[in-house]
Amino acid sequence: MKTTVALGGGVGAAKLLRGLAKIISPPNLLIIGNTGDDFELHGLHISPDLDIVMYTLAGIVDESRGWGIKNDTYNALGMLSKLGFEVWFKLGDKDLATHLIRTKLIKEGITLSEVTARLCKMCGVKAPLTPMTNQQVRTKIVSNKQTIDFQEYFVKNQTRNRVTNVVYEGAGKAEPAPSIIDAITEAKRIIICPSNPILSIGPIFAIPRIRQAIQETKAEVVAISPIIAGKALKGPADKILASMGYEPSVQGVVKYYTNLIDRMIIDKADEAQEDKIQNLGPNVTITNTVMKTLEDSIRLAQVAIKPG
Amino acid sequence: MKTTVALGGGVGAAKLLRGLAKIISPPNLLIIGNTGDDFELHGLHISPDLDIVMYTLAGIVDESRGWGIKNDTYNALGMLSKLGFEVWFKLGDKDLATHLIRTKLIKEGITLSEVTARLCKMCGVKAPLTPMTNQQVRTKIVSNKQTIDFQEYFVKNQTRNRVTNVVYEGAGKAEPAPSIIDAITEAKRIIICPSNPILSIGPIFAIPRIRQAIQETKAEVVAISPIIAGKALKGPADKILASMGYEPSVQGVVKYYTNLIDRMIIDKADEAQEDKIQNLGPNVTITNTVMKTLEDSIRLAQVAIKPG
Repeated sequence: MKTTVALGGGVGAAKLLRGLAKIISPPNLLIIGNTGDDFELHGLHISPDLDIVMYTLAGIVDESRGWGIKNDTYNALGMLSKLGFEVWFKLGDKDLATHLIRTKLIKEGITLSEVTARLCKMCGVKAPLTPMTNQQVRTKIVSNKQTIDFQEYFVKNQTRNRVTNVVYEGAGKAEPAPSIIDAITEAKRIIICPSNPILSIGPIFAIPRIRQAIQETKAEVVAISPIIAGKALKGPADKILASMGYEPSVQGVVKYYTNLIDRMIIDKADEAQEDKIQNLGPNVTITNTVMKTLEDSIRLAQVAIKPG
Repeated sequence: MKTTVALGGGVGAAKLLRGLAKIISPPNLLIIGNTGDDFELHGLHISPDLDIVMYTLAGIVDESRGWGIKNDTYNALGMLSKLGFEVWFKLGDKDLATHLIRTKLIKEGITLSEVTARLCKMCGVKAPLTPMTNQQVRTKIVSNKQTIDFQEYFVKNQTRNRVTNVVYEGAGKAEPAPSIIDAITEAKRIIICPSNPILSIGPIFAIPRIRQAIQETKAEVVAISPIIAGKALKGPADKILASMGYEPSVQGVVKYYTNLIDRMIIDKADEAQEDKIQNLGPNVTITNTVMKTLEDSIRLAQVAIKPG
């Protein structure tokens, strides 16, 4: 039985998960990764959020960037550029191995959840990581009248577009990957990692059966705010919250998670917000949420698993 | 109209072709490349013989090996190895770009001949290069009772297997790629490059309409022997000829090309064989056939295009 289910995507999630994986043994843990960022590039199926988590847990992530594999080179990319292709998405040469394997297995008809399990095993990652679904969900950014693919917005345009809406294409009809609903139902705790609520967690909650299971579970659902003192530690979470009509603050995050969370973990910098958050419903835990070292990650994971 | 059609595959062919491409202008030339060596690896469609020719004509080949791209790295391969995959086929990181593009375009339903034309254009190669067919032909090595994929025999096993037969799977039903038959019919000369007769030229001749067109054309068909003084300059041509019942000599090559060639270019080292070859049918031109420099390649190409 899974005691702990964690939902996340991106660098903030990976940082918490490397701590969580140290204190919850693999059979008791399930990590649900966002695949709304997945896309096809040069014929490869790329799952950026799953890879960030996998590389981090495998201890091979490029820590300075939080994504990709350390000491990687970019010679395939350089050649693609010489041949006339756009290379704004930084595919490392080592990283390509993962995408090649994933693409090949998917082409052979193997589900993304099985592919992810195999890749994790190959990388020596014991903590079970699953995509949120085996079906295609694609996060799209609406900027005024234009709809942009997520990676184009996020990587190519460096989040410069003014976001007027975020759409999770395919999510409404997507089924959760195997084991997700059982795990959410049986778990003692659900942890929403300090990820971008709209871009990394939003796609997961956009799958109706996952959202419903989270709302119905008896587990404590605890979220860690990715916003500290009105700013995202990394990425555009603050900007996107504001664009979508949420205050770029811990309160904005709590409002986005309305009816979904029991407890909110906020940074000491936001101590003054405690009452306002409690008025919105959830309990509040105040701690240091910035994770610089593995010890920081373990300590924050311990706060997350301690019943509020 | 094509005045010159060249058939080949592998390093020997590429060396001649870099000379030929200097003296025959692109609209007058067609290079037909062997695709019997093509295979799928890590989900990629790899066309080793087309790539050797393309990289050589583009001036980016690793000249010390004759294949691959110069100054390439092997980090994707190293990662695949760490993940538990066999990596006996040396895929360079830059080289991967070519395979990614080819695989993607083929998956989109574009023919290999069109893909090859696009890749050549991207690489700046002006000489028209076409695969022998857009259908799948796979050279298989029969070793006693075992049938082995070509690359397994050639690269993995380093040609150690005793060859009892060579089979060109799919060739009997394969159609020539567009423009090949017209070019052979209208050309002034057909040049069979100094490639392995059985492994590189054999698959091309195994396509019935190509073989027939070569037999019927009014063009002079001239072959350059890949065997010098009973030895292959590179690769297992001598061993394979012997295994298949041909003498590993210029005479063996001529016998393999029975009813196909009008003229045979042999090395000065085989001068003494002139009469014996003429008795078998073809005219003979004797010259230096070893190509070390571009000048050697141009000179040999000039001998090849000079009517015998």
